[in-house]
Amino acid sequence: MQFHLNGFEPGDPEIFHPEDRYAAPAKGLPLPQEVDVLIVGCGPAGLTLAAQLSAFPDIRTCIVDQRSGPLLRGQADGIACRTMEMFNAFGFAERVLKESYWVNETSFWKPDDAKRENIVRSGRIDDTEDGLSEFPHVILNQARVQDFFLDVMRKSPTRLEPHYSRRLIDLETDPAASDYPVTARLERLDPSHEGEIEIIRARYVVGCDGARSTVRKSIGRALHGDSANHAWGVMDVLAVTSFPDIRLKALIQSAGEGSIVLIPREGGYMVRIYVEMDKLNENERVASRNITVDKLIAAVQRILHPHTFEVKEVAWWSVYEIGQRLTDRFDDVAEDAVGQRLPHVFIAGDACHTHSPKAGQGMNVSMQDGFNLGWKLAAVLQGRSRPELLHSYSAERQTIAKELIDFDREWSTMLSAPLKSPNDPDGVEPAEVQKYFVRSGRYTAGTATRYTPSVLTGQSTHQHLAQGLTIGARFHSAPVIRLADAKPTQLGHAARADGRWRIYAFAGADDRAQPSSRLRALCDFLADSPASPVTRHTPAGQDIDSVIDVRAVFQQAHRTLAVETMPAFLLPRKGRYGLCDYEKMYCPDLKNGHDIFDMRGIDREQGCMVVVRPDQYIAHVLPLDAHAELAAFFGGFMLPQR
Amino acid sequence: MQFHLNGFEPGDPEIFHPEDRYAAPAKGLPLPQEVDVLIVGCGPAGLTLAAQLSAFPDIRTCIVDQRSGPLLRGQADGIACRTMEMFNAFGFAERVLKESYWVNETSFWKPDDAKRENIVRSGRIDDTEDGLSEFPHVILNQARVQDFFLDVMRKSPTRLEPHYSRRLIDLETDPAASDYPVTARLERLDPSHEGEIEIIRARYVVGCDGARSTVRKSIGRALHGDSANHAWGVMDVLAVTSFPDIRLKALIQSAGEGSIVLIPREGGYMVRIYVEMDKLNENERVASRNITVDKLIAAVQRILHPHTFEVKEVAWWSVYEIGQRLTDRFDDVAEDAVGQRLPHVFIAGDACHTHSPKAGQGMNVSMQDGFNLGWKLAAVLQGRSRPELLHSYSAERQTIAKELIDFDREWSTMLSAPLKSPNDPDGVEPAEVQKYFVRSGRYTAGTATRYTPSVLTGQSTHQHLAQGLTIGARFHSAPVIRLADAKPTQLGHAARADGRWRIYAFAGADDRAQPSSRLRALCDFLADSPASPVTRHTPAGQDIDSVIDVRAVFQQAHRTLAVETMPAFLLPRKGRYGLCDYEKMYCPDLKNGHDIFDMRGIDREQGCMVVVRPDQYIAHVLPLDAHAELAAFFGGFMLPQR
Repeated sequence: MQFHLNGFEPGDPEIFHPEDRYAAPAKGLPLPQEVDVLIVGCGPAGLTLAAQLSAFPDIRTCIVDQRSGPLLRGQADGIACRTMEMFNAFGFAERVLKESYWVNETSFWKPDDAKRENIVRSGRIDDTEDGLSEFPHVILNQARVQDFFLDVMRKSPTRLEPHYSRRLIDLETDPAASDYPVTARLERLDPSHEGEIEIIRARYVVGCDGARSTVRKSIGRALHGDSANHAWGVMDVLAVTSFPDIRLKALIQSAGEGSIVLIPREGGYMVRIYVEMDKLNENERVASRNITVDKLIAAVQRILHPHTFEVKEVAWWSVYEIGQRLTDRFDDVAEDAVGQRLPHVFIAGDACHTHSPKAGQGMNVSMQDGFNLGWKLAAVLQGRSRPELLHSYSAERQTIAKELIDFDREWSTMLSAPLKSPNDPDGVEPAEVQKYFVRSGRYTAGTATRYTPSVLTGQSTHQHLAQGLTIGARFHSAPVIRLADAKPTQLGHAARADGRWRIYAFAGADDRAQPSSRLRALCDFLADSPASPVTRHTPAGQDIDSVIDVRAVFQQAHRTLAVETMPAFLLPRKGRYGLCDYEKMYCPDLKNGHDIFDMRGIDREQGCMVVVRPDQYIAHVLPLDAHAELAAFFGGFMLPQR
Repeated sequence: MQFHLNGFEPGDPEIFHPEDRYAAPAKGLPLPQEVDVLIVGCGPAGLTLAAQLSAFPDIRTCIVDQRSGPLLRGQADGIACRTMEMFNAFGFAERVLKESYWVNETSFWKPDDAKRENIVRSGRIDDTEDGLSEFPHVILNQARVQDFFLDVMRKSPTRLEPHYSRRLIDLETDPAASDYPVTARLERLDPSHEGEIEIIRARYVVGCDGARSTVRKSIGRALHGDSANHAWGVMDVLAVTSFPDIRLKALIQSAGEGSIVLIPREGGYMVRIYVEMDKLNENERVASRNITVDKLIAAVQRILHPHTFEVKEVAWWSVYEIGQRLTDRFDDVAEDAVGQRLPHVFIAGDACHTHSPKAGQGMNVSMQDGFNLGWKLAAVLQGRSRPELLHSYSAERQTIAKELIDFDREWSTMLSAPLKSPNDPDGVEPAEVQKYFVRSGRYTAGTATRYTPSVLTGQSTHQHLAQGLTIGARFHSAPVIRLADAKPTQLGHAARADGRWRIYAFAGADDRAQPSSRLRALCDFLADSPASPVTRHTPAGQDIDSVIDVRAVFQQAHRTLAVETMPAFLLPRKGRYGLCDYEKMYCPDLKNGHDIFDMRGIDREQGCMVVVRPDQYIAHVLPLDAHAELAAFFGGFMLPQR
């Protein structure tokens, strides 16, 4: 898709008239008095969480923001492969694929050894290693990503809409209160209600309110970390240039004028540029430097020399200081109180970790914060899991944020360091920068996240049964053919953002689910045994797959298997009519040479079970006959329902 | 996507609450008094035409329908590969891919030789041959397809919305009138305005008003063809069955109970079944038979024996007679008057061709009628083409409709014929049915359409330069890599439904557009020569690619070519800022083994030009240096603009 040719316009580019792109402003309804979850902040973390919670008709969620309406421009734009996998579960990956810029390759530029005031291309590489994800790394305005989440919320059972123009004043928590332990005071900012105070009581409050988070302050936590000493500028521009890689992601290091990270943007014309500005003195702030967009443009022109760069329109720009800061815990429970009390207030996204934007990680990690917390809150609020489950949010995500902070510090330092030159033999070799970028590929794609063993993440005892599906890491999808309708699809796309767990049962070599086979025995156990986690944790009257969704993957070509001989458990009868769900069984896509058993290192002889969390992370790998271990795993955090 | 589990609900299944799926009913605004194009009928032909015309801000279109609002259920559902290619040009293919059932394989069932009252599977084949299109054959409710077109219209520059509750009374044409030769009288059917008469004057009127078309009658044309002698029933049902191929398209022929065409539907649960009912006596009509849905269900149960089939909900059903009928011309100009007068009234879709629905062709051919006429009307109304161009609509589409009628007659006869059996040695062999189905694969995929030489379709003199891109047939896309941003894409997806012509210039083996190369010479000619069709037919002040969009395809791997050395004509400056369009150049996707030059039989030594119409059909194949022939081709129907 091409757009923004005649200037940047926010909103859905498929709608011709910009004024048709956003619905009339919200009616400014008063806040509800009591909710299950109050989310403060409509950024990536808050909206991911809100979209997740909006899927459950019985959970009352309220999301507020200081802004008067949806975000329209600027801010983050990098969308990692892993995030696309999550978007697919939320049902809008295809919209992002269509509208975004795809980062296919990255080029590297360095000073020309022959004439050091010029830059020359020093390398060009694939941005993402082959096979890392079924989705590309893409770039799209954060505002559009938020639009898609808002759309999910609007279409959901709860028709959730944000309450805009609300500023959180403070929070008060009464741990003794059994119903709504947290009370929030908010001030209205919309002109017709300006200054009015609203009180809302909540079971849980989640602060997604950015680096200056009021929620974080209210629970007595602070961001700790490096002070900033480099100023960077960022701008989204429409420009005419002779720089040939203007439509490739490019890392450009000049001899004496600093560095650029250049990121082409959606629509075919716009480009985002991060440009190194001055070094700051200790305790000096960017604001004092009086940096203007003209200074940014002039710096870009110097760095790109000898290429021309003429800016026609600035859609958005900003200046920021690099600083890596982190909160020690992401909830309101002190480290030494974890055994005694339960969390009721959480923080997510920039409220607990801030860093430079140049690695394109911030929005992605923040959304994963929201995705991690969302299904857990839903499981506890719906009485499906013990509330102790909520301790795992801070435990899991703080570690991830720490990795991010460390990565960003290293990457930022490298991009700002002086280059090796005749005058500076101790500087960084440009080739080192490229090597580091490649080495960090899986990390920046968002696929390196790996949760360590816990109540939610099994030990690696049986990891050898599925060597390519790492316990604790995200479920790495692969192509398959659906048995009943021969549809080529991705096994990972069985996952929807619906709070459900999934068990993929990979059958052994001769296992067609015939009587006495291990897959048949597993199905019999799951369907009929009093110890079955599926029946035990599914409330009476709900579809059998509504808490734990079991899918089988066979090794045979799909035309050689007979649907009618399969266990009834894999052809579940659902809904008010008892219709049959035919989408639980898969085979390898042998015709196209994609054998999921080979691709993901599944033990062909034994097969295995892969247990996947609602947020797409692999919780466990178990042998097909590990019935008791499977039951024990779910019993570790889920509550019996019958 | 799974939906309809608890009963059929019309509208976008991503919206949870059915009542949120359709906007409030239209405000019932009066019709405009004068328009460029009046379209009668909001079916597939009418909406395709309306969506196409809505893209042009300066064309005033009005579309009316007798219904009180959008179609909600039933009717056609088959979407051929070729139609998906068109949907992609309209910008909603990805929505159809997501929501539809994919017809991957077709199974065939016949009487069991051992026990003829039972059916057994006799074959199972790929539904579409490999490589025929980048899109699958899919099934989706016609109502949803229409929703997507309505969405295109609503988002367009003209924000076109249908006027519902309007019945056309009659048309009057005054060929002498230079402005609005056609006057239409319509009657309002909406309760608050019932019976009110409205008069609208139009430059052109298009009757997309179905088999009983008032427009057709008003121009004195009639459907000619076979009378019906077979009654078939059709129903969309939610059912529980032991028939194993319920999620595969299946052709089922029983020994003595007739035939079924079974088509799984979107959402994973619903199925459409066409079932043969009684033979009718001569001149007998279906209505007189008093066929009920219970009779349809009972017939299905008998044919599927020994499988059970229990219907839980009937979403829609109907009974129809097979009859193949065709109009001799699709406009208001008599055969012998083509040289003397210009057409002003056209008919499209069921208004000019009716047939059985079982081959899934009707909606597809009707939409192609609308697509064929749309760009021609726009070109004439915008003064870009001579009005004589409009004669080509009837000439091209009547031939296609004739082929459809012939195909349907043969296919319907085959499905209704008695099977070969011990008692009926002259009957049809079930294997013959399967063979015919396979043989007709390209036809039913919609890719067999081939326009014959005319002012719009060149002679095959240079066809050998691109053996896989047949002149007169649809442009068969193939994977490529876009040069400037290394994006893997489909060359055919450069085509949008925007009324533009496209020239794909395939470069010769050593041609990197270097000085003195043939591609460079072509670019120089197109950019600078007074004879250039590109400059000649593009109005002053418009972007250089706004009438004819030229793209180049090189043979080299994309990393070996330098964007900065390419002709300026392939890096056109556009829009109010003169920004550079970087999306005009492509290379083969060698890494994935897709070489478009091999896949489409392009002459590697010489290269060639492939000229593609706005409706995606190949108009011509020419040598790269056939500058004069290219200019002459466009001069044959386009008007000079400067």
